[in-house]
Amino acid sequence: MDQEKLKKYRPYPPVRLTDRTWPDQVITSAPIWCSVDLRDGNQALIQPMNLEEKLEMFQLLVQIGFKEIEVGFPSASQIEYDFLRLLIDGNHIPDGVVPQVLTQAREQLIKKTFASLKGAREAIVHLYNSTSTLQRDVVFKMNRKEIIELGVAGARLIREQAERTETRIRYEYSPESFTGTELDFALEICEAIMDVWEPTPANPVIINLPATVELSTPNIYADQIEWFCRHMKNRDCALISLHAHNDRGEAVAATELALMAGADRVEGTLFGNGERTGNVDIVTLALNLFTQGVAPRLDFSRINKVINTYERCTKMKVHPRHPYAGELVYTAFSGSHQDAINKGMTALELTESGLWEVPYLPIDPQDVGRTYESIIRINSQSGKGGVAYIMDHEFGFKLPKDMRPGFGRVIQEVSDAYGDELTAEMVFHTFEKEYLLNSNGYHLKSFNVLKRHFDRDEESSIAEIEAMVVVKGEEKVIRAAGNGPLDAFCTALREGLGLRFVLHSYHEHALTRGSSSKAVSYIEILDQDDESWWGAGVDTDIIVASIKSLLSALNRSAAKNKKE
Amino acid sequence: MDQEKLKKYRPYPPVRLTDRTWPDQVITSAPIWCSVDLRDGNQALIQPMNLEEKLEMFQLLVQIGFKEIEVGFPSASQIEYDFLRLLIDGNHIPDGVVPQVLTQAREQLIKKTFASLKGAREAIVHLYNSTSTLQRDVVFKMNRKEIIELGVAGARLIREQAERTETRIRYEYSPESFTGTELDFALEICEAIMDVWEPTPANPVIINLPATVELSTPNIYADQIEWFCRHMKNRDCALISLHAHNDRGEAVAATELALMAGADRVEGTLFGNGERTGNVDIVTLALNLFTQGVAPRLDFSRINKVINTYERCTKMKVHPRHPYAGELVYTAFSGSHQDAINKGMTALELTESGLWEVPYLPIDPQDVGRTYESIIRINSQSGKGGVAYIMDHEFGFKLPKDMRPGFGRVIQEVSDAYGDELTAEMVFHTFEKEYLLNSNGYHLKSFNVLKRHFDRDEESSIAEIEAMVVVKGEEKVIRAAGNGPLDAFCTALREGLGLRFVLHSYHEHALTRGSSSKAVSYIEILDQDDESWWGAGVDTDIIVASIKSLLSALNRSAAKNKKE
Repeated sequence: MDQEKLKKYRPYPPVRLTDRTWPDQVITSAPIWCSVDLRDGNQALIQPMNLEEKLEMFQLLVQIGFKEIEVGFPSASQIEYDFLRLLIDGNHIPDGVVPQVLTQAREQLIKKTFASLKGAREAIVHLYNSTSTLQRDVVFKMNRKEIIELGVAGARLIREQAERTETRIRYEYSPESFTGTELDFALEICEAIMDVWEPTPANPVIINLPATVELSTPNIYADQIEWFCRHMKNRDCALISLHAHNDRGEAVAATELALMAGADRVEGTLFGNGERTGNVDIVTLALNLFTQGVAPRLDFSRINKVINTYERCTKMKVHPRHPYAGELVYTAFSGSHQDAINKGMTALELTESGLWEVPYLPIDPQDVGRTYESIIRINSQSGKGGVAYIMDHEFGFKLPKDMRPGFGRVIQEVSDAYGDELTAEMVFHTFEKEYLLNSNGYHLKSFNVLKRHFDRDEESSIAEIEAMVVVKGEEKVIRAAGNGPLDAFCTALREGLGLRFVLHSYHEHALTRGSSSKAVSYIEILDQDDESWWGAGVDTDIIVASIKSLLSALNRSAAKNKKE
Repeated sequence: MDQEKLKKYRPYPPVRLTDRTWPDQVITSAPIWCSVDLRDGNQALIQPMNLEEKLEMFQLLVQIGFKEIEVGFPSASQIEYDFLRLLIDGNHIPDGVVPQVLTQAREQLIKKTFASLKGAREAIVHLYNSTSTLQRDVVFKMNRKEIIELGVAGARLIREQAERTETRIRYEYSPESFTGTELDFALEICEAIMDVWEPTPANPVIINLPATVELSTPNIYADQIEWFCRHMKNRDCALISLHAHNDRGEAVAATELALMAGADRVEGTLFGNGERTGNVDIVTLALNLFTQGVAPRLDFSRINKVINTYERCTKMKVHPRHPYAGELVYTAFSGSHQDAINKGMTALELTESGLWEVPYLPIDPQDVGRTYESIIRINSQSGKGGVAYIMDHEFGFKLPKDMRPGFGRVIQEVSDAYGDELTAEMVFHTFEKEYLLNSNGYHLKSFNVLKRHFDRDEESSIAEIEAMVVVKGEEKVIRAAGNGPLDAFCTALREGLGLRFVLHSYHEHALTRGSSSKAVSYIEILDQDDESWWGAGVDTDIIVASIKSLLSALNRSAAKNKKE
């Protein structure tokens, strides 16, 4: 990029906090969560929510378990005023859930804010003013002292109103654009506000320190929070709240590091909705905690419901790669990943540790209400492991290990030619065509066991069979004896039709899915060139399944010879 | 969420590195970039790229400025083999750009890898094997020693092949699933591989330490990288490479902190494409550097072209909130943001610092080839500042400051009723309807200046006018004199039609957009109730514009009185 353009930008100044402690901390409990979906989230939508959508979103947030929900800026927007009245008058706010309302430090706005709250049991009144160097100079044309006076005046008005209302009021203050504000000035204005509100440890204020614009690497935000917590007086009278935006794609990290640095509370939105790049994503934060064994105190066990309501209300889409939620995040297309997942899932069934340990899957999809269905998806990048997984988990066919590479190659040819993802049904259809329905060469017309004899003394079995096999349209009856029906049939094929092959391996299992009374047989033969061919057959009679399976292998071998 | 489920998860073990230095570091230069769009990116697509799309993607990556591009796993995939041959035989690899190929530690694969490279000037051969505890146990069923032997054997084979080929081979090794591997073991296997390859400071190997799955907060990845860099022997013979995935939504942060911790190189993809939640997004990383005044050494000055090619080749969409690239990230809908941006943009024109300083916009959209057009978009959350910005930047109407609140309210009513975003055209249409075309009350039919006289000695002007005004369908001729045509017209309205109003303020400017010979006039009157009304008028004659503007204000006042 143009070197000239670089001169327009300066590096963000670091905090000189060499004795920081946050890098040694670990998050061991969930913060207090506050949803700002109805405020920051809503104001950034091309099509803001209407009253019905706001109510549906509010009810979703309550179901998820949010106890603090910012419902808007009722003094600045009629619809947000109306919505707050709907919540209060309609008794939509359950016990234990506290609505939060935003206001600037102007008398009219503050009065209207309190009017909008009439009848509420409890509420958080959230006062903010812009404190950044840039906004002081360019937008407000006020110096530090004037900005503090503005905030303090607002805080006084709020306290006056709060002491007159029956609603239990909790106070919140944000030095807006905190990350653009000199740290000492941010502290100064917050302390001035706290002096007005006179919080106590039993009745603390919320001091919210927003990364209104994300301007630095996340460690610097953590340094700022640790510096702030250490330097403020009456730390025990304040809940330090975070409110990160995602301009540099690091809001989740900034929030986690800042929690390690001592913050108590997080404001954010579902799926990171919000102005520009959005607010911090609370879904990701909560499930990040969950995967570390820390109770998130929010319920995302039915993530698809959350996604559906979110998408309907906001008209925004959750990206297919969105952590924990996207369509593709529990999916492996690549062969080596599929193979490892397949082995990991199998090992998991055998282990008794109770721990979730599967390669490439940091969380059990079922814990957020997703199924294992989409874990393995098949395209030209996929391999035998994924294909075997699909055949097993979707259709109940447990392909023998040595059979998988061959079927993997068949699938790869099909998907290379198709150029798109193969659905599970297409994989199965290919399996059917290749193994179960490949009756072009030899085709079983009828099969009878004429005699079966087991001699307990000699420990020997004898079976005699008769079969009608269609060979190139011509019906042929073959008959032979052997130590069992399959052995007899092999002999009949060799003697009656002159085929040369060796039975190399044999597997069978009941088909637990679909019609449960059926069985599947897999047979590997070595043909006259000592080349291995697998076949498969399905029937209610396991003997017939094995006969079909053998013919399937012979037909595949014959088809190859035809090609040459 | 279910407390029982929590027991399935354990916290990720931290690195005990209390004397870490990375939190005091700042990134002051770009790392070596390696694109893995054609490998990690491609293998995670529902519809992998075909040859033409791969070539288009490769050429885009070259244009952006990538010098190292992983083109695939040619020994495992026919299409990746064919693509590499297409690149080499078709002379598509410019000087200075090095293709990188991935291989596992198996003899056949390594031989095929070198066959695929025949004729290339230079290449990076990237060997990997899985080293994590879980994969050792579950997938490979090998102990540490066997895993090292596997890797070392592969390294030897690669060296043998490299010494026989004319292609200049550089070596890369990845202990795959590094973040699931014990740190000491990762170091041990990397050093064992380096012992085989015998790198020098002039000819270093690439040691790539992937967060194949993101399992922890990003500070721990940084600790791991710092630990690794400090403990490895021959640090100067290796380039430490990062390869982060985004399972916890922190890949960008993990990469930045790990660069601070000493890494030299970054593997990633455009827009974070890749398996599951994707790889780290190089677009965000590069532009994060740019906004700190650090040359990214990648060119994203035409981001829309990058987005278009990416979306066409991958069939994935860039999310509207994707940092630096999404449709909405340079857009403000909210009133207070719009107001601040409007003031910031105005201040920017006046300042001579050369610095980009605009509230809520951490980067100048023009630096990535975006226009200012979409910065301000209007919906029911918007305010007067945004509306004024649209009127100015899109249509050249510089509304006087005191006129803005009134028009802001008009727009808010319209957008509340409309329930969706208002386009700039809809804003202008509303302005036209409200101010320029509101001729229902008084309507100017003709206007003549009968006499204009300026007396230099007396410093006084006199104008006499005659106008035909249509009032409720009836044409009326009025005539008067004043100290100028507008003053005369006011007098004529008062005397001829009995209107009562005071001219309160007057603004005008040439319309620089559209037909440049027109002028616009804005007039504020106080009506008989002392209420303020703004009007606006446009004409090629500035006098006529002001007459229209006055009638516009009068008509708005009259319309209000009608409503009552």
